[in-house]
Amino acid sequence: MMRADNPKLTLVAGGAGFIGSHLCQALLDRGDHVICLDNLQTANPDNLGELERNPRFEFVEGDVIQPLPPGIIARAGRIRRIYNLACAASPPHYQADPEHTMLTNVIGTDHLLRLAEMSGARFLLTSTSEVYGDPEMHPQREDYRGWVNCTGPRACYDEGKRAAEAMAFDFARMNRAEIRVARIFNTYGPHMNPDDGRVVSNLICQALTGSPITLYGDGSQTRSFCYVTDMVEGLMRLMESDIDGREPVNLGNPEEFTISVLLEVVRDIIPTRAAVQYLALPIDDPRRRKPDIGRARLLLRWEPQTPLAAGIAKTAAWFAGQLDTEKLRIKERVIAA
Amino acid sequence: MMRADNPKLTLVAGGAGFIGSHLCQALLDRGDHVICLDNLQTANPDNLGELERNPRFEFVEGDVIQPLPPGIIARAGRIRRIYNLACAASPPHYQADPEHTMLTNVIGTDHLLRLAEMSGARFLLTSTSEVYGDPEMHPQREDYRGWVNCTGPRACYDEGKRAAEAMAFDFARMNRAEIRVARIFNTYGPHMNPDDGRVVSNLICQALTGSPITLYGDGSQTRSFCYVTDMVEGLMRLMESDIDGREPVNLGNPEEFTISVLLEVVRDIIPTRAAVQYLALPIDDPRRRKPDIGRARLLLRWEPQTPLAAGIAKTAAWFAGQLDTEKLRIKERVIAA
Repeated sequence: MMRADNPKLTLVAGGAGFIGSHLCQALLDRGDHVICLDNLQTANPDNLGELERNPRFEFVEGDVIQPLPPGIIARAGRIRRIYNLACAASPPHYQADPEHTMLTNVIGTDHLLRLAEMSGARFLLTSTSEVYGDPEMHPQREDYRGWVNCTGPRACYDEGKRAAEAMAFDFARMNRAEIRVARIFNTYGPHMNPDDGRVVSNLICQALTGSPITLYGDGSQTRSFCYVTDMVEGLMRLMESDIDGREPVNLGNPEEFTISVLLEVVRDIIPTRAAVQYLALPIDDPRRRKPDIGRARLLLRWEPQTPLAAGIAKTAAWFAGQLDTEKLRIKERVIAA
Repeated sequence: MMRADNPKLTLVAGGAGFIGSHLCQALLDRGDHVICLDNLQTANPDNLGELERNPRFEFVEGDVIQPLPPGIIARAGRIRRIYNLACAASPPHYQADPEHTMLTNVIGTDHLLRLAEMSGARFLLTSTSEVYGDPEMHPQREDYRGWVNCTGPRACYDEGKRAAEAMAFDFARMNRAEIRVARIFNTYGPHMNPDDGRVVSNLICQALTGSPITLYGDGSQTRSFCYVTDMVEGLMRLMESDIDGREPVNLGNPEEFTISVLLEVVRDIIPTRAAVQYLALPIDDPRRRKPDIGRARLLLRWEPQTPLAAGIAKTAAWFAGQLDTEKLRIKERVIAA
């Protein structure tokens, strides 16, 4: 329910997802009236529970590849900020329907850019470190053009995001909309999908359940892991900054860990005796990924604040709660049977 | 008008354009029934004149970003081959409406891939050497991933084509359609647009009209120029080949010329005393571009046959005819006024 005095609105497409739900919360916390548009493709409905208790929050179910819901178009004149986080981001999810992934990035972004044009709202695209592919330059600066295979199974996402960036910068060049583009590197925290196949959720859930630990490759590939509240702070600073929007900005943690070190951190927090299984690396899996965040530091005065061990501990605590809930649900099903 | 015995059909999207019109002619010459779908955005209507005299040719005006015309959908079951050449290909044309360029490549390709899925037709995408961007590897092999700026003014085309490739290979991986992807390098010949800003048409038209010759950069950047009938032969061989369609194939002339050498060839054919003006290179203009056509030679037994001087002579002759026609039109307008 929106209040009757026609407040300014913030639209978060993909706001029921992992990062989106934290962003909605942070926007509510600062007093925004938030409309969350989400198709619930990969969102955990629990993510919406807390948000929906806030009277300044409104959930609209819809898919950005379809024309935007009339209820949003009708209020275009009041929308001041549009965050586009709409797209499945983990390989098993975005590869399940690659055509939908590509259209989400291209048609979805086009619909939201046109809404920005219509409303005069500022538009922020969450792009991705995947635009750098399997990078030859390390760390990756924003002017690095990437090493992306446009014919492989990751291309629906990687090329979809590159295409979405191209559209956003074209809208800026044509003065059709004011835009911001964030390139998000690996992010983790509560609300991650336990089954999205990402390394942080995989390792934590395997440790919590005592399942065998699966490592892809030999564990020497590196990732930079940014805690989700740090990421949300970066996105909001970028949106509110005065930078001209003609350049993308990396957001992520420049501290680089091998997957093996991550496993050690997880095991320190959740003791497990389970064996480690080494599996083959997926096709086109990037071996190293680390942001150069010089631009974000300079322009947004932003850098991640949460140490890995602290972030992993909070994430593990949340997953433990989720697993308990799941166990309870199973127990209830057994009792009911 | 189609014959009444329900023959198999070949659809050429973009068939009224430069390469498309030559392709339609070659398909008619071998006996195909051809439907040409084109929005006439950059097509010279004269290109259709000859084709429309053939009873096996049908023109349908339409834009591939819109749902395909019902008259095409209704005959999906008879379509056996779909060539997708729909997209403006010269920077001044594709940059005039970058949003439309991106959607033509992504939504247009999606519509045609879905038609291929529905009809069981084989689908050929004309991709481009632009997927290599400003290449660091020379010559470019198909496994080179390119050096493309996804935020610049060429990105709507370059990234649009990369996204279209990604979609085509996804349709193949999911067994939704049988696909072929050609990466077309610089092509020239009759039916080029005199105002598309490409170097061959620029130099020929400037020489024919005695205008000052404009060269971008210092003339040392290289291009490989393939004569259009050679290109059409390559596209048809690729379409009819048995290669599994999971890899793109470069089509172009591996013989490399500097722009300065091209100017010499043009001046040999069309003497002109006009001065040469050197202008700044456009943003993101590739400095060198030359295909490695090893794959086409091996798999299609194809390579260009037309020497540059012979091709330029034919092209110049055609442009001379066009300019005469244009002069006649101007004369008629003056008389009518």
